[in-house]
Amino acid sequence: MDDRFHDLKTRLAQVSDLGRTLRLLGWDQETMMPRGGAQARAEQLSTIARIAHERFTEDGIGGLLEQIGPYEDSLDPESDEASLIRVTRRDFAKAVRVPTDLEAEMTRAASMGQSAWFEARAESDFSKFLPFLERNVELKHRYIECFDPADEPYDILLDDYEPGMTTAEVRAIFDRVKERLVPLISAAREHANEVDDACVYGDFAVERQKEFVLTVIERFGFDPGSWRIDLAPHPFATNFSVNDVRITTRYSPHHLTGLFAAMHECGHGLYEHGASPLLERTPLAGGVSLGLHESQSRLWENLIGRSRPFWRHFYPSLREAFPEALGVVDEDAFYRAVNVVKPSLIRVEADEATYNLHVILRFELEQEILAGTVELRDLPEAWNARMKEYLGVDVPDDAQGVLQDIHWSGGTIGYFPTYALGNVMSVQIWEAARSAIGDLDAQVEAAEFGELREWLRENLHRHGRKFTPNETLARVVGGPIDPEPYLRYLETKVGSIYGLV
Amino acid sequence: MDDRFHDLKTRLAQVSDLGRTLRLLGWDQETMMPRGGAQARAEQLSTIARIAHERFTEDGIGGLLEQIGPYEDSLDPESDEASLIRVTRRDFAKAVRVPTDLEAEMTRAASMGQSAWFEARAESDFSKFLPFLERNVELKHRYIECFDPADEPYDILLDDYEPGMTTAEVRAIFDRVKERLVPLISAAREHANEVDDACVYGDFAVERQKEFVLTVIERFGFDPGSWRIDLAPHPFATNFSVNDVRITTRYSPHHLTGLFAAMHECGHGLYEHGASPLLERTPLAGGVSLGLHESQSRLWENLIGRSRPFWRHFYPSLREAFPEALGVVDEDAFYRAVNVVKPSLIRVEADEATYNLHVILRFELEQEILAGTVELRDLPEAWNARMKEYLGVDVPDDAQGVLQDIHWSGGTIGYFPTYALGNVMSVQIWEAARSAIGDLDAQVEAAEFGELREWLRENLHRHGRKFTPNETLARVVGGPIDPEPYLRYLETKVGSIYGLV
Repeated sequence: MDDRFHDLKTRLAQVSDLGRTLRLLGWDQETMMPRGGAQARAEQLSTIARIAHERFTEDGIGGLLEQIGPYEDSLDPESDEASLIRVTRRDFAKAVRVPTDLEAEMTRAASMGQSAWFEARAESDFSKFLPFLERNVELKHRYIECFDPADEPYDILLDDYEPGMTTAEVRAIFDRVKERLVPLISAAREHANEVDDACVYGDFAVERQKEFVLTVIERFGFDPGSWRIDLAPHPFATNFSVNDVRITTRYSPHHLTGLFAAMHECGHGLYEHGASPLLERTPLAGGVSLGLHESQSRLWENLIGRSRPFWRHFYPSLREAFPEALGVVDEDAFYRAVNVVKPSLIRVEADEATYNLHVILRFELEQEILAGTVELRDLPEAWNARMKEYLGVDVPDDAQGVLQDIHWSGGTIGYFPTYALGNVMSVQIWEAARSAIGDLDAQVEAAEFGELREWLRENLHRHGRKFTPNETLARVVGGPIDPEPYLRYLETKVGSIYGLV
Repeated sequence: MDDRFHDLKTRLAQVSDLGRTLRLLGWDQETMMPRGGAQARAEQLSTIARIAHERFTEDGIGGLLEQIGPYEDSLDPESDEASLIRVTRRDFAKAVRVPTDLEAEMTRAASMGQSAWFEARAESDFSKFLPFLERNVELKHRYIECFDPADEPYDILLDDYEPGMTTAEVRAIFDRVKERLVPLISAAREHANEVDDACVYGDFAVERQKEFVLTVIERFGFDPGSWRIDLAPHPFATNFSVNDVRITTRYSPHHLTGLFAAMHECGHGLYEHGASPLLERTPLAGGVSLGLHESQSRLWENLIGRSRPFWRHFYPSLREAFPEALGVVDEDAFYRAVNVVKPSLIRVEADEATYNLHVILRFELEQEILAGTVELRDLPEAWNARMKEYLGVDVPDDAQGVLQDIHWSGGTIGYFPTYALGNVMSVQIWEAARSAIGDLDAQVEAAEFGELREWLRENLHRHGRKFTPNETLARVVGGPIDPEPYLRYLETKVGSIYGLV
């Protein structure tokens, strides 16, 4: 191996260790840490983020990247080695733009913001959260200023989550989605009496939900030797190695949304778990973009977890676990209930169709926040007005409104669109898997997910960040992002359930 | 504030953040991490340890210490500022002796060793553990070589855990302890029929033990806003700030030792929790030596948790929690049972008297390991022979023998003596607290621990590492370490229970 490459790889391995340590500090903060630890945790996160940024931008990595060209030219561009150099160049070019002090401060503010959000949401008190949000947004403006002006400031943030995608491209996709889904949702609402979802609201003992979730995700690929599932106020997935995957969910004793959240996070976990072990401790391990990440979580949550074949297999045991709530509900009624199209308050609990409107609302508000056309203190009113406009629902309190998501508390602006992009790509990928596998529905109905999981690993997961998101998607589906399959899928599914055909 | 001092403090705060992050990586490894994460975790620990060591030894801290003399001279030596400089000088002088590569390698080997130990103990297979132990011992030899030769190589290791104490001093104390305890244990064994401890072995549902433990430690000072308690294969305590304290225990459904382990770890937690908040993010936060740490854990475990007044208060609720096992056992019989003097296999479950022989055995074996007079592959035989000689017990398997403790797996050699030193100091401190408080027994009987806790905080905990262990002990008890009060306490207690007077 080239000496310089070896040196580069060693340095990047340490940066990777620091990044994974940051994730552990974050995971612990969300799942385990007593509240008293918040201030110290923010300092710990800030210090590790500072050092990770320094090590990446200051310690000779730039020099190695300059000297390594001849070696790079000798490599197959698709090799792990060439990819490592190429991706590191791109990451490096972005990282050196950002002063270390800003990086450390953003991390500290994010950690403090998350702790404040946790309390503010519990008390439904936006005013407790406002100063932390203001700080996060102020730092985001400073971050944007580190880069050359883009067509829109939002482009710069979006690129961190969906590299290569522009705000204009997202807007064009969302316009098409909106154009087709608004009439679809209206039509479903006009036939609302076709679906009764009362059965998914009832008494669902949390311990039994936990057991059922485990039986499902163990079929998906969750393995206690390499995974954990814990509770968190906002479900998420993370990992500290391909063999140390942590997912979280939350349960309500009154409904079953925790089950879908767990399947969703398991999908994220499978993506991280499926990266080639050869990419461990390199910047290439893990998902290539959040949109592609969401394509995986939404695939397991919706295309499998809200499908007929899935419930044909699992509904009997669910009904057995909750005989009082579900004893008189047959499989078809349950399938329809978990696919109800009904505007509601909480994004992560929304149905497949209205979900996208939740995302579009946030995408628009984020751009207005950056443009300063909405004052942060007025955000609850803006949120509530738009919820009324897009979804026709009245927001009863901020906990179920503007405070419901963790993202802004952690300074994460520009992330939300990737959820809807993930929806779009999930169906492109699902259709490719179906063509390749043939009897996928029968396999789902038998709760046999091994072939699908291996197909996803082979075609998507193992590549990690080696290729761009566009290149990666093209490898799986043969072309660029395209909302048509997703819209067709939804129109067919909703149309069939609501008798719209 | 002096600019140089401010600079020093900022650098030390980052080193503290790194140290606490290391502890989180370790806590997670022991309590939460799936086994698949072991290899990556060892790398993460190694990288953070490497960076912490580099930052401490290379980044100008030495220069600041050289320049800061005039400012230091202007300070009250007992001030936080002067103490910070003084303690940092001492820490720095030791740290610069150790190459960063060795520090990183010791940390990696410790992490891998702990994972291997966990499996080897579960399977009672010493051979699986041996190569990791060999690696740890080899690295300890290299570590010892970093320092000027001491009277005995063991002195160098001991100083990391009990600064200022020599092996010869420990040996002298242990000789006195052995001289008095061996006949005491023999006398108790001769009157073995005085105490029937069968009642502490039975069916004790773990969930009820957990509830009982919580009611006890919440009286001690455990507060869910700043603490957690979890399960671990080997109970331990750690913390990531004065307000983020993590303790662990383990439960058996067949006996109650998990309760005593929890009280023990709670005592450690109270020491860390009681450090002055002004010492946060400095090297002064936390316990000054492991001996003094053990004085606190053993105080809460034994001087309180195995005392008559304690059980006068708590026994009724324990009996209510376990009516089948304890219904016919009265308070006096239970008190006697938890104070049985009976040689046994497991150190952490041993009674107060024989416990010290477990420690002395390890202290002697560790010196022989360093001297090479016992081969590591022969350690199980050496262990078993000495258990027979000192305690008269036959070791049925290595899981209950040489593999029972986690310490050697993490490269921790020289730590064990501090357990017995802690026993000794715990009674010195207890007697000082009793003189100061007056009706301490009555307070314990009322489960009122606030005054004791505040007295310990005021006289010991808040100082953190500001003074040497000797100075710290002298502040609490007015003099140096002295086994006489401890031996008198044990002779009185055991004598009274066994009718030896």
